[in-house]
Amino acid sequence: MSAVNFALGALAGAAATAVAADAYPSMMPSLGFSRPKDIELKYFDIAGAAEKVRFTLLMGGVPFKDTRVSFGDWGKMKETTKFGQLPLMYLNGEEKPYAQSGAMLRFAGAITGLMPKDPVQAFKVDEAIGLDDDLRREMRPSIMLSYDQTIKPKEKARKVKEMREKLAANEIPRFLSHFEKMLENSEYLCGSSATIADAQFLTTCRWLGSGVIDHIPADITTKYPNITAFRARMEAKPEIAAYLNKPK
Amino acid sequence: MSAVNFALGALAGAAATAVAADAYPSMMPSLGFSRPKDIELKYFDIAGAAEKVRFTLLMGGVPFKDTRVSFGDWGKMKETTKFGQLPLMYLNGEEKPYAQSGAMLRFAGAITGLMPKDPVQAFKVDEAIGLDDDLRREMRPSIMLSYDQTIKPKEKARKVKEMREKLAANEIPRFLSHFEKMLENSEYLCGSSATIADAQFLTTCRWLGSGVIDHIPADITTKYPNITAFRARMEAKPEIAAYLNKPK
Repeated sequence: MSAVNFALGALAGAAATAVAADAYPSMMPSLGFSRPKDIELKYFDIAGAAEKVRFTLLMGGVPFKDTRVSFGDWGKMKETTKFGQLPLMYLNGEEKPYAQSGAMLRFAGAITGLMPKDPVQAFKVDEAIGLDDDLRREMRPSIMLSYDQTIKPKEKARKVKEMREKLAANEIPRFLSHFEKMLENSEYLCGSSATIADAQFLTTCRWLGSGVIDHIPADITTKYPNITAFRARMEAKPEIAAYLNKPK
Repeated sequence: MSAVNFALGALAGAAATAVAADAYPSMMPSLGFSRPKDIELKYFDIAGAAEKVRFTLLMGGVPFKDTRVSFGDWGKMKETTKFGQLPLMYLNGEEKPYAQSGAMLRFAGAITGLMPKDPVQAFKVDEAIGLDDDLRREMRPSIMLSYDQTIKPKEKARKVKEMREKLAANEIPRFLSHFEKMLENSEYLCGSSATIADAQFLTTCRWLGSGVIDHIPADITTKYPNITAFRARMEAKPEIAAYLNKPK
């Protein structure tokens, strides 16, 4: 297990609290999760499936223990985990964790108020999340193939390239066009204030635009002005900026 | 567009209302969606991604217009839809539909009370849904490959067989073991009353056990006694039984 970072959540929590009244009128971290030890999020030291949950808790001003697991430690740890998966979330120091990042995201939304309570408003947020999940699902086969040790490297490289080039030409632009349209007349995916859907889509924008996915051009999202402005808007939020700019 | 079926939702709605007080103490279809024309669910004439939503509305006693789209009509219709996807859900006769079956499921859960309001209880339900989503995600590459027209039939058949046999031997049993354990001491996945997670997992059990997925043995779920009892318990609910036993 790598170093555990208490400070981050607490720091960002304080920052968020300071701006909360203005920036997050719907925020109500009122469900008793107010100390870093109340929520522990355990994941690899990457954005991956946990970043949307981190962004939500940070935006909502809910401190949490942001534990990072090294890939080296994961081999031994995997068999001991709930479903053989990370991330895991621990509540109130309980021994048994929760799994599934989509569930964590919605839980974080409930305790921060970043998921609307009104069923029709929540429907819109879940719809945006579903669309982002679909985009990520399209990416998955080539990601899994890139980790596959049973295929010859040269054949694997050729197949991954072919799949990624198709994704970059077809599926990714198709999905991004939908998101671009959703951001046409509003600052966030579901209206004038951020929700958990924005926390998730920010994670996807950063991933697609990171340049680390071979054959996916790093400028793939910057062709979309609304998405580009959305990303800048999200990354300028004080508690997200503090997290992203924190020295590693 | 194939024949539109008003009667089904109304019939099952009436049946559910009759048993509601006993069977669904947490049910509260109190959000104004009480007439078949309030909610229209549009999908192919198969279980697929919509069945979990149908099961939830049926169990919750919320009538809905259960519109079925023929595969022949879909070709022309696809480009006119929100994200090029079915199912679609229309609320209150509004022209603009909602997409994403996971979002519809949670919305149906909110208006029927089959999604708990307590954030920690809802966390457990979303966790079970996420696990089922993961199982379905594992199935997807071989399903998509089976529809692929660009691969030679013989090569495709060989690849699909290889992928499905691996799934039947490894991934599916691994996921089903988790569900089996979740049902060890409770009648439903998240306690003593049904939730939207059960509506989704029932759909998956029926699909995996249908015998229509080549190379996935139809008895793949019946090896698990808790899952088998769960499926029978769900299918015995009057409004689900009425729906499943309705003459086609």
